[in-house]
Amino acid sequence: MNLRGLQMQEIIMNPIGYVKNDVQTKKDVSWGNEVSTILLNEEYHTGCTGLENFSHAMIIYYLDKAAFQKDQHLQRRPQNREDMPLVGIFSQRGKDRPNRIGIMTVQILSVDDTSLTVKGLDAIDNTAVLDIKPYYPVYDRKDAHVPEWVDRLMEHYF
Amino acid sequence: MNLRGLQMQEIIMNPIGYVKNDVQTKKDVSWGNEVSTILLNEEYHTGCTGLENFSHAMIIYYLDKAAFQKDQHLQRRPQNREDMPLVGIFSQRGKDRPNRIGIMTVQILSVDDTSLTVKGLDAIDNTAVLDIKPYYPVYDRKDAHVPEWVDRLMEHYF
Repeated sequence: MNLRGLQMQEIIMNPIGYVKNDVQTKKDVSWGNEVSTILLNEEYHTGCTGLENFSHAMIIYYLDKAAFQKDQHLQRRPQNREDMPLVGIFSQRGKDRPNRIGIMTVQILSVDDTSLTVKGLDAIDNTAVLDIKPYYPVYDRKDAHVPEWVDRLMEHYF
Repeated sequence: MNLRGLQMQEIIMNPIGYVKNDVQTKKDVSWGNEVSTILLNEEYHTGCTGLENFSHAMIIYYLDKAAFQKDQHLQRRPQNREDMPLVGIFSQRGKDRPNRIGIMTVQILSVDDTSLTVKGLDAIDNTAVLDIKPYYPVYDRKDAHVPEWVDRLMEHYF
C-alpha cells in the first residue's frame, strides 16, 4: 500500500489487543493509580518480549466512544472549561479528535507472552489497543515548556 | 462506532495532513536537524491554533512504506543489528510493526492556520499524518530507564 499523493486514502487498522481494567465510564481526572492489563490478540503473543527491561511504555489506543464534530471540536476549550483558552484540537489532548487516537506513557508493572500490565493508563475497560512502544527518553523526553493553562488543566488528572 | 467485544473490528482512519520535507528515502540515523512542514488538509485548517505556545508536539504518522510480516518482525533485533537483542516488536521502535503507526516528539518552529513546521521529525516527504498532540510533560515526560542496548542503538539517531 502506498499513499503517495492520494490525499484522501483510507487507512485501515486492526486492534492488537484490548484493555482490561475496572474503569467502565469516561472520566477526566484521577487516572494515576489505575492498573490495566492489555491482553494481546493471539497473533501478537510474545510481541512484548523484552519490554520487562523498560520502566515505561507508550500505549496507543482507539477512543471508540469519542466523536469529532468539526463545528464543536476543531477549536474548543479543554474540558469545556470557561477558564481554559479556545485552542485547536491539535493544541490539546481532548478525546473528541480526528482519528480518535489516544496515547499515554505508563509504568510497566509486568509482562508475559500474552499480556502487559501497566499503571496509569487513561483508557476504559475493553478499549482497543493499536500499538505499544517502549518509552525511549532520547525520543520522548524533552526539555519542554507549556502554556500556563496546561498546569491548571492537569492539576487533578493523576 | 463501538468496538466493545468485537475482537476483529476494522478501524478506518484518514490523514489530517501530509509531511513536506527534503527526505525522499528511509534512513535509520541523523534525523535531528531535519525541518519538516506538515500541511493540514483544508478541513483541519486552524486546528493547530495555540500550538505556538508549546515548545514540542507529538506527531503521529502512518508508515506507509513499512510492512509487518509476523515471521520476520514479531520478534527481531533492532535495526537487524547482531549486537542487539532479539525482542518483540512492541519492545522496540522498528517501523515494520502492526498498524504502522510512527510517533515522534519534535520541536515546534512555527504554526499558522494551514501548517505546522517542526524540527527533528523522522518521517519522509509526503508521509500521511494521523494526529498532532501538544507535548505535556505531565503525560509524556517520565523518570524512565531503558536497557543498555537502547543507548547503543540510538547513538547516531539524532
